[in-house]
Amino acid sequence: MEFQIKCHLGYEISGPASFLFNVAVAQNSFQRIITEHLEVAGGESCREILIGAQRYHRLTAQRGAVELNYEAVVDATHELLGDPSRIQVPLFEQIPAEAMVFIYPSRFCQSDLLARLAKREFKQDESGFYRVTRICNWIFERVEYLRGTTTPTTSAFDTATQLAGVCRDFAHLAIAFCRSLGIPARFVSAYAYGLNPADFHAYIEAFLGGRWILFDPTRLAPQSSFVRIGQGRDAADTSFATIFGGAVMNKMELSMEPRTGRQNSPEYTTAPISNYPSTAQSE
Amino acid sequence: MEFQIKCHLGYEISGPASFLFNVAVAQNSFQRIITEHLEVAGGESCREILIGAQRYHRLTAQRGAVELNYEAVVDATHELLGDPSRIQVPLFEQIPAEAMVFIYPSRFCQSDLLARLAKREFKQDESGFYRVTRICNWIFERVEYLRGTTTPTTSAFDTATQLAGVCRDFAHLAIAFCRSLGIPARFVSAYAYGLNPADFHAYIEAFLGGRWILFDPTRLAPQSSFVRIGQGRDAADTSFATIFGGAVMNKMELSMEPRTGRQNSPEYTTAPISNYPSTAQSE
Amino acid sequence: MEFQIKCHLGYEISGPASFLFNVAVAQNSFQRIITEHLEVAGGESCREILIGAQRYHRLTAQRGAVELNYEAVVDATHELLGDPSRIQVPLFEQIPAEAMVFIYPSRFCQSDLLARLAKREFKQDESGFYRVTRICNWIFERVEYLRGTTTPTTSAFDTATQLAGVCRDFAHLAIAFCRSLGIPARFVSAYAYGLNPADFHAYIEAFLGGRWILFDPTRLAPQSSFVRIGQGRDAADTSFATIFGGAVMNKMELSMEPRTGRQNSPEYTTAPISNYPSTAQSE
Amino acid sequence: MEFQIKCHLGYEISGPASFLFNVAVAQNSFQRIITEHLEVAGGESCREILIGAQRYHRLTAQRGAVELNYEAVVDATHELLGDPSRIQVPLFEQIPAEAMVFIYPSRFCQSDLLARLAKREFKQDESGFYRVTRICNWIFERVEYLRGTTTPTTSAFDTATQLAGVCRDFAHLAIAFCRSLGIPARFVSAYAYGLNPADFHAYIEAFLGGRWILFDPTRLAPQSSFVRIGQGRDAADTSFATIFGGAVMNKMELSMEPRTGRQNSPEYTTAPISNYPSTAQSE
Repeated sequence: MEFQIKCHLGYEISGPASFLFNVAVAQNSFQRIITEHLEVAGGESCREILIGAQRYHRLTAQRGAVELNYEAVVDATHELLGDPSRIQVPLFEQIPAEAMVFIYPSRFCQSDLLARLAKREFKQDESGFYRVTRICNWIFERVEYLRGTTTPTTSAFDTATQLAGVCRDFAHLAIAFCRSLGIPARFVSAYAYGLNPADFHAYIEAFLGGRWILFDPTRLAPQSSFVRIGQGRDAADTSFATIFGGAVMNKMELSMEPRTGRQNSPEYTTAPISNYPSTAQSE
Repeated sequence: MEFQIKCHLGYEISGPASFLFNVAVAQNSFQRIITEHLEVAGGESCREILIGAQRYHRLTAQRGAVELNYEAVVDATHELLGDPSRIQVPLFEQIPAEAMVFIYPSRFCQSDLLARLAKREFKQDESGFYRVTRICNWIFERVEYLRGTTTPTTSAFDTATQLAGVCRDFAHLAIAFCRSLGIPARFVSAYAYGLNPADFHAYIEAFLGGRWILFDPTRLAPQSSFVRIGQGRDAADTSFATIFGGAVMNKMELSMEPRTGRQNSPEYTTAPISNYPSTAQSE
Repeated sequence: MEFQIKCHLGYEISGPASFLFNVAVAQNSFQRIITEHLEVAGGESCREILIGAQRYHRLTAQRGAVELNYEAVVDATHELLGDPSRIQVPLFEQIPAEAMVFIYPSRFCQSDLLARLAKREFKQDESGFYRVTRICNWIFERVEYLRGTTTPTTSAFDTATQLAGVCRDFAHLAIAFCRSLGIPARFVSAYAYGLNPADFHAYIEAFLGGRWILFDPTRLAPQSSFVRIGQGRDAADTSFATIFGGAVMNKMELSMEPRTGRQNSPEYTTAPISNYPSTAQSE
Repeated sequence: MEFQIKCHLGYEISGPASFLFNVAVAQNSFQRIITEHLEVAGGESCREILIGAQRYHRLTAQRGAVELNYEAVVDATHELLGDPSRIQVPLFEQIPAEAMVFIYPSRFCQSDLLARLAKREFKQDESGFYRVTRICNWIFERVEYLRGTTTPTTSAFDTATQLAGVCRDFAHLAIAFCRSLGIPARFVSAYAYGLNPADFHAYIEAFLGGRWILFDPTRLAPQSSFVRIGQGRDAADTSFATIFGGAVMNKMELSMEPRTGRQNSPEYTTAPISNYPSTAQSE
């Protein structure tokens, strides 16, 4: 399905500042970029670099205003993975090297601190897919989606008891629970259709049955509309803008629309799907 | 310089358990393995896997006792990097892809929470090497080396105020301060000569002047004796044993000795040295 | 019922140290002290002071050993409070002044952080007595009683997710939940019969229906054997020994026995009981 | 010196709500209330209660708007306490009962976690007054006064490393350091002249030389203008409004002016002063 994506960011610079933007959509066999345009005003030497399969844009600025305009038309597809009752948690000894780092605790996903809670709440025997689904349902039912209740330093350990937050908090808690149970899990930043207000989205991928399978504990947007920007251990790895120096954001406008002429609209699903290639890739 | 290393670990297994050992020394141009022997009793199918340049040994066990014996003779060298006043913090836009992930906050190194403290304490203008040296001196002077005051969940944020800990706590705080200041920094697990009692050691590497330079805020062992096992974002990535299932450690004996016949003994230095190759390597 | 209580504490003093012991049993209409003897060796000028109704013994020492021996025979009774379905949570505007401070969050009972969790888990409409009973059952079922998993700095916020601890951790979490729901609750330190190994015990009192009612989420000892030492907002207020200066504890022996010749043994109950007088008393 | 104080608070009530206001000025020998008027619109049965020497106003409301208007003219004085070099930290064994609770850690003042830092930073031998002055200077120099960087759950442990906050954060950290060093210290909520924007103020009192001496690490308002509302272990005890139920504040207007016709204006001082009577009072 094709989507028109727009992202407009603006900053006021009070002194030398370096930016690392991560807003361009990733390129892989499930995401075909049909057209794309990225333009930056106000800085020097914008340069694209790849870290893993993620596309970053680097920029330095001395003073004044910096504006980034990104537009893309993307054809996003995904793969339906078949019988959910057969999608298993990998045996620890069969987790491939590239998935191993996603089993360790990270800044915002303290799986080491949540191990007892995870084991207590999710001890039932079931397939890996059903287990992660149950983790996401548990979070959806207990955690209230409330803007303004959390900060950029809020972590899964906080959310497990404070029970309020936004998509990144939902994702962090789901990831932490997965890792506590021996399931590699990672954070995905994405564009998604229908968020109100429009914003970057965050969801998770769990490594089950040899694939990175997509889960979204927020249920705020249809999964078939997810267009990946990047993935990492948690939000610390996947910020849309990492900045060193004096800069204040004064503009953030996003939009995402299905392309005209296409009939079917994005859909919610409870079936196992993946939009990440199965070939082993390093982090 | 050549060292004889021995590592003996023992576990009692109460149910099915999977082990991921990371005790074998890394192989690179600064570390030549002369002889090596790894033997495991009590489990099944011990298999070596590489994650990045790190060597892991995987094992499953159903019950009873598991014992790991590792012995190696290693020739460890390092490179002296020249004038410390010229070893600079990299410009943010020049940090290579493989070092970028080491600038993000991690589970035990919350550089996001320590940014004001780091900027206040280390604001002086100086070369990158002197700046990291000053960070390590600050920690050495303020943090008391005290076994039993911290736990596996203690983080840099705790140590910054609690001011007591062991080598991993010293390393976590140094890493967090570096990252707060825009310096990529990572955690290294190693064998080191002269620790009393013998134990695994932890020190840090900061990415300065295009190289991973070695720093040790504990001053507990001569740097020329460090033999790398592995490196990662923090202790979460570099545990000598990651275990899923029911196992209790009942034995841990390490020893490290310079090889007989060699005259010079390991030495402390305040000069910039590296024992990690300069070629770009993924995490 | 009469109990013979013994408490023997020993310390090694490395420099001038001041002690504030809180080991003598409280005196009120439910606890009659039949005989009592407190003896201190090694310090200067042991003096009893009263803070509220709590009995403290103060002592200073310069060096060497300090030993405290306390023995008492106490007749402990309690009051059965009648129909549990009628014991209500006080309306906020009817909480008496002396109970108000026990509604605020405290060092180890962060009721402000646990409000959503408390409201989610205990939202059912029921009498105050049943509500606090349900809180204690929730804790008993979820939190594992495990020595060595927590430290003196562990708080209710930790225990809510880490789900392991000892009697003080159980009490802190129960208190925090009560306060989150508008129920004044406090921490009681006590001697209790049958603990293995013998130790000081901690339980809680909730202010319901105009009385301080006794609850013990650990179920480790029969309530009719509880002999109160003191009460406070949490463990910070009720330590058996607060010490300033250089002292290391090297002995702690407690014992508690029903007095010979008495037939009935201490009993567990799920009925509402109180062993604190109903007259208003300041904190 | 006489001050005209006004306080206007407004709330929107979405369901039954109970309020406990603590906005009326305390009455003691240093604060003479010349005229006073408190009026509440929209609730039921506003009633004054005393907890310790603090004046609370209780109120319940079912729906609609609640408004509180408080006006007072107060003559505030204080006592100059003489030679600062003679104002000593009390020996632990001489701390009176009513000051003892202010030596324990509390919700927002985790003196147990900050003990090493306090001992390291403030180890110099000096009088108690100079020591607490140095604590306040340390905080003033390191912690940035920045609205919006902290939340109602921020504690001294956070501020010690995050180094930003508002008056309550400054006070919490000062209190925690004092207690770590064996000095009883407490939180005072007050009206103060010259705050911009007008707001409730928070400062601390340390118990030194037998008196509660006033310190303000923020230096934001002249101490001679402080008019006490109440005091407690920390902000948890001294909120201007504790609310159970559904209420949202939509108005808060404060003002404080020296009364016309008086010549001298409020003054800053670095001398030891107290505005709390020396007679023992319970918490």
